[in-house]
Amino acid sequence: MSSEFGRNIHISVFGQSHGQAVGVLIDGLPAGEPLNEEELSVFMARRRPGKDALSSARHEADIPVFLSGVKDGKTCGSPLCAVIENKDARSSDYDELLDKPRPGHADYTAWVKWGGLADMRGGGHFSGRLTAPLCIAGGIAKQILARRDIHVGAHLAEVAGIPDDSFPISPTPELFRQIAEKAFPVLEDVAGEKMKTAILNAAERGDSVGGVIECSAIGLPKGLGDPMFDGAESQIAHALFGIPAVKGVEFGAGFTAARKTGSQNNDIFIVDNNNIVTKTNHCGGILGGITNGMPLLLRTAIKPTPSIALPQRTVSLSRRENVDLVIKGRHDPCIAHRAVPVIESVTACVLLDMMSVRLENFTQE
Amino acid sequence: MSSEFGRNIHISVFGQSHGQAVGVLIDGLPAGEPLNEEELSVFMARRRPGKDALSSARHEADIPVFLSGVKDGKTCGSPLCAVIENKDARSSDYDELLDKPRPGHADYTAWVKWGGLADMRGGGHFSGRLTAPLCIAGGIAKQILARRDIHVGAHLAEVAGIPDDSFPISPTPELFRQIAEKAFPVLEDVAGEKMKTAILNAAERGDSVGGVIECSAIGLPKGLGDPMFDGAESQIAHALFGIPAVKGVEFGAGFTAARKTGSQNNDIFIVDNNNIVTKTNHCGGILGGITNGMPLLLRTAIKPTPSIALPQRTVSLSRRENVDLVIKGRHDPCIAHRAVPVIESVTACVLLDMMSVRLENFTQE
Amino acid sequence: MSSEFGRNIHISVFGQSHGQAVGVLIDGLPAGEPLNEEELSVFMARRRPGKDALSSARHEADIPVFLSGVKDGKTCGSPLCAVIENKDARSSDYDELLDKPRPGHADYTAWVKWGGLADMRGGGHFSGRLTAPLCIAGGIAKQILARRDIHVGAHLAEVAGIPDDSFPISPTPELFRQIAEKAFPVLEDVAGEKMKTAILNAAERGDSVGGVIECSAIGLPKGLGDPMFDGAESQIAHALFGIPAVKGVEFGAGFTAARKTGSQNNDIFIVDNNNIVTKTNHCGGILGGITNGMPLLLRTAIKPTPSIALPQRTVSLSRRENVDLVIKGRHDPCIAHRAVPVIESVTACVLLDMMSVRLENFTQE
Amino acid sequence: MSSEFGRNIHISVFGQSHGQAVGVLIDGLPAGEPLNEEELSVFMARRRPGKDALSSARHEADIPVFLSGVKDGKTCGSPLCAVIENKDARSSDYDELLDKPRPGHADYTAWVKWGGLADMRGGGHFSGRLTAPLCIAGGIAKQILARRDIHVGAHLAEVAGIPDDSFPISPTPELFRQIAEKAFPVLEDVAGEKMKTAILNAAERGDSVGGVIECSAIGLPKGLGDPMFDGAESQIAHALFGIPAVKGVEFGAGFTAARKTGSQNNDIFIVDNNNIVTKTNHCGGILGGITNGMPLLLRTAIKPTPSIALPQRTVSLSRRENVDLVIKGRHDPCIAHRAVPVIESVTACVLLDMMSVRLENFTQE
Repeated sequence: MSSEFGRNIHISVFGQSHGQAVGVLIDGLPAGEPLNEEELSVFMARRRPGKDALSSARHEADIPVFLSGVKDGKTCGSPLCAVIENKDARSSDYDELLDKPRPGHADYTAWVKWGGLADMRGGGHFSGRLTAPLCIAGGIAKQILARRDIHVGAHLAEVAGIPDDSFPISPTPELFRQIAEKAFPVLEDVAGEKMKTAILNAAERGDSVGGVIECSAIGLPKGLGDPMFDGAESQIAHALFGIPAVKGVEFGAGFTAARKTGSQNNDIFIVDNNNIVTKTNHCGGILGGITNGMPLLLRTAIKPTPSIALPQRTVSLSRRENVDLVIKGRHDPCIAHRAVPVIESVTACVLLDMMSVRLENFTQE
Repeated sequence: MSSEFGRNIHISVFGQSHGQAVGVLIDGLPAGEPLNEEELSVFMARRRPGKDALSSARHEADIPVFLSGVKDGKTCGSPLCAVIENKDARSSDYDELLDKPRPGHADYTAWVKWGGLADMRGGGHFSGRLTAPLCIAGGIAKQILARRDIHVGAHLAEVAGIPDDSFPISPTPELFRQIAEKAFPVLEDVAGEKMKTAILNAAERGDSVGGVIECSAIGLPKGLGDPMFDGAESQIAHALFGIPAVKGVEFGAGFTAARKTGSQNNDIFIVDNNNIVTKTNHCGGILGGITNGMPLLLRTAIKPTPSIALPQRTVSLSRRENVDLVIKGRHDPCIAHRAVPVIESVTACVLLDMMSVRLENFTQE
Repeated sequence: MSSEFGRNIHISVFGQSHGQAVGVLIDGLPAGEPLNEEELSVFMARRRPGKDALSSARHEADIPVFLSGVKDGKTCGSPLCAVIENKDARSSDYDELLDKPRPGHADYTAWVKWGGLADMRGGGHFSGRLTAPLCIAGGIAKQILARRDIHVGAHLAEVAGIPDDSFPISPTPELFRQIAEKAFPVLEDVAGEKMKTAILNAAERGDSVGGVIECSAIGLPKGLGDPMFDGAESQIAHALFGIPAVKGVEFGAGFTAARKTGSQNNDIFIVDNNNIVTKTNHCGGILGGITNGMPLLLRTAIKPTPSIALPQRTVSLSRRENVDLVIKGRHDPCIAHRAVPVIESVTACVLLDMMSVRLENFTQE
Repeated sequence: MSSEFGRNIHISVFGQSHGQAVGVLIDGLPAGEPLNEEELSVFMARRRPGKDALSSARHEADIPVFLSGVKDGKTCGSPLCAVIENKDARSSDYDELLDKPRPGHADYTAWVKWGGLADMRGGGHFSGRLTAPLCIAGGIAKQILARRDIHVGAHLAEVAGIPDDSFPISPTPELFRQIAEKAFPVLEDVAGEKMKTAILNAAERGDSVGGVIECSAIGLPKGLGDPMFDGAESQIAHALFGIPAVKGVEFGAGFTAARKTGSQNNDIFIVDNNNIVTKTNHCGGILGGITNGMPLLLRTAIKPTPSIALPQRTVSLSRRENVDLVIKGRHDPCIAHRAVPVIESVTACVLLDMMSVRLENFTQE
């Protein structure tokens, strides 16, 4: 069940980068949820490539077609399947790579696992293209959560070492909306300009850069998640590490907490307007795996795109010798900015799944 | 299924800190694996408290009793259950905390979830005491893996901001053995002395410190793990975040990778003695979720122990007002050093689970 | 995860009877398995309606389109998605039923669960139409198993109380082939003629009849399945009861065994050509949940089609009173004969899943 | 995960017949449920052997010790572990069987799977002794369900072909209580006497007999269960087939439905006191996998005990030749009557699991 996650709301993605289509199957959605396709389309555009020099030149309209699970514009309780046709694929770019695995890619490990039987054109099932159907699921999850006043937002916290501001202790839906509307999703546009320059410089050198994404969810009920291995952190991290290029996940202060003392890191409880909150949020809204009502806060490390134009060394699998490699094809000098809605999507899907028992409507019958 | 992890080799822990016993149930172990109880006991001693001023004064012998799954000193294919009696518990230390949740602990979220019905004496099921049965499972997993020349080792990479060396690119079983034998599990003893001083200083101030643990596994076959959400990173991170106090997990270069360029971060493939390896190991032995034969490498952030002697502010749940709190009881000024075998254990259990299909012996019948 | 089954080879079906399409997603298939589409099409034709007076007049070509998971006619290791467009749907036939639940159908329980939000046109997701994608999965599973000399076959053991012969103690692939080629899948054609007459008579009266399907699998390795709740019977029965209209499942002698003595029912082991076999097969090839190498043998009870032309009484949900109901639309006077390949399909899928660990090819890398 | 079932309330059993203990781990129970140990003990006595000539002479007090999950006599939300020590085991009776597999037992398939590594003394993990911890779980589940006016009851519907009456269309808690108090759990005592005679006669001949158990649950809310493979029938049958000796499961009219016409088998809906019910209950309270509010009704076939005193033929595994076998040890001439509380237990556990989302209390925080 490699391409699936979620317990009660179960999400499966399918497709290869240069196959006929990519798609997603969502089993367990509540019935009667309106599907705002225009809003979904706006959300998916945030991930889409081909818009400018900051990302790959591959053009894909990425319009989902709903095969099941929707009736009269609403979810109907049965599994929802949505597919996106692949259109602008140039598979010939990939012929050489079957024998010469790209450094930093899954080419080699896929070959180890399937010995040449996998469809690795364009990265195949390992391609970032699979994040498009993840965004269909995420866009739908975000709409369902928003109806319950739960909002998920994210921004680029860092690109090529250039930091953006951090989320304030209590982000607002309005703040999330503002970032989502930006062509480049940062809090501080000056930082954003520097990041863009770094990306374009890397592109010019035939190189690539990585980044960090900070994601938050507000409005979560207290008490979501279970102890130990069903804790919120376990469930969310499991899904996030399934996104290609994610190499680190931390919650709240994360690795920084390791350098603090207990008296610095502990979040003091206070009564605020009869509500129990914490004064700081170093725990990222999760204590013992269970939400405490403060904003969920997490950060993920996105590695630099491994496909670079610079010549690299690699091996020939058939000849078993070291060789030179020049990667053809159209690639992103950075994927971190395009990954922002993907991180939002996967986080939203897991949160919806954790919320699922509270979504069920038991009729009076 | 909150306290369980693993797909084919399924591990469940149970018990409350001050209940009758803690224990572990392991379903799916291969049959015929010798159980070296002495080796297990030596391994578990690495986690045990009460040895010196660096950890809690609670004394527990932590001797596992095997109720099932073992015959004539070997696993027999049926579920293995092992329990440890709780002996040195002082529950009265915890009476006040039922109304005054400790900052940084699960006291508040457990109360939200179960409204006072949970057994929170000593932290209950959220206690670090539950890591003792995790070490039983981990100790057994390590023995089974070692028989297949797979070795898991870990060290304190950082305490209170003081760094240890990093693992070399190719750690050896001998190196893992050396660290395991040290009272304080570091590579560089000079750094270890500084860490210990920092821990004792924190203890003296009534405070606590956190740390980072680096863990590695060597000898893994190439091709373990599946794409996307069944990738090695997803499975391992899921389990690691189930350990109390873990707030961050990264693989290979992790968050550092986010600051590199593609040409710096990509691990070049080379042919070494007819074996395909990588020159560097920034990916931590995992590409596309699948092991590439290089050492698995990960780091986890351990937050500072939230139970500190310093007076803190918190709330009274019944009176719904801000109050003072002084935590009684015996606590660890740092748990990172005791967590080293726990991180090894959980990593070993997930790796054994990922190995499980290769462990099955199909008879000739 | 209501519409999914399987552990390592995970099968999800989606679609509503009158929605845009029905389909199946299969995650976990081994790579490199040739897909014989012609053979698949012949297999699916066995289930297809509209062929004669014995089944519904709805015409559907049922040609699967493969969206993913296939490359150059072979499975490629990534999830396989196949869809069938719905064409000949007459939804107007179903308007009245939204308020008047059909006896014996899921109309009422779906209304209880989703309160009118479900897409119940044509039975929606509960429709027998969902067995078409199950047959895609089953047809593929049968091809993969056949390559390993494992064959699954089934026949109508009973219709309207008229019995067919039982499978011999050792059915052959040739026997399975012969039945599959018959327009009416029985061992004994004289019995088949009587069954057909009973079906046509029922149709004439505006009524319907049920039946029993016997299914067998030969060539299974010894040792498949695990004790207790992962036993072969548990896994197979779980999946079979997911097929609409199945109300009973028994293995080997099943309910008949309950009337035998131990000395009658025990299958004596004998050495045959140095192979250990049993003289009889009352256990249906499974002992303690684990296959013993004898043919798997099971029977399922298929209830009579609940949609009948005869006037029935039911209730009006809105008016909450007893009312008359005459069901319009095109219905099957019996579904047992069309269900034969469905039972084969689901059984084959579960067996393939149980075989999965033996299908993995570990390369030499 | 062979010895586990349940999704949200997850039950694992462990132990071997002649090992140190058998036990059960239950993860996911709601907190605050009182544990009536006396009631549990009375329930477990219904399964206990050694009471009379109708069952095995092995004496076991079967008193569960609770290691975790209980505080002050109530469940506390963390996993509940209960164990029963094995006392009266005579392993020497089993020495010969290691080489001579008993017909009808798992001896041979266990040997195929583990090649002699399994602990097969007394049947090991395959023994009916494992149903004792299942009854701990079932007894607890029944108490929790009863508090919500859901009651599960069962009786011997048939032994050695001698039928008991069937449950009335609406069984009452009082009826279930009456059967539970009987030493021999039938509705019609005259039939019970005949059954007992048949069992004693079989015992005298050195043979054994089988039976059928009818089980019902009343008070279930409408709308439990999900379509297709998460239907109530799928979930319940999966668990029931995990009980040793169960070879058939049918719901409602089951295999009898296959012989009826649609007009006979359909359950007409009627309005009764403003409640929608069905006039008959041929569907056994389940339509489309979802409960309709009528009593759940199911029947399981229990095969005759395979361990009989009569001499049998079998094979020597080492010599690979046909040999004689006389089984020593103390065995049940029938296990169907002792299996009645086991069927109740497993059914109750699955129902509790299906109810689990309705059991969660979300606090006001």
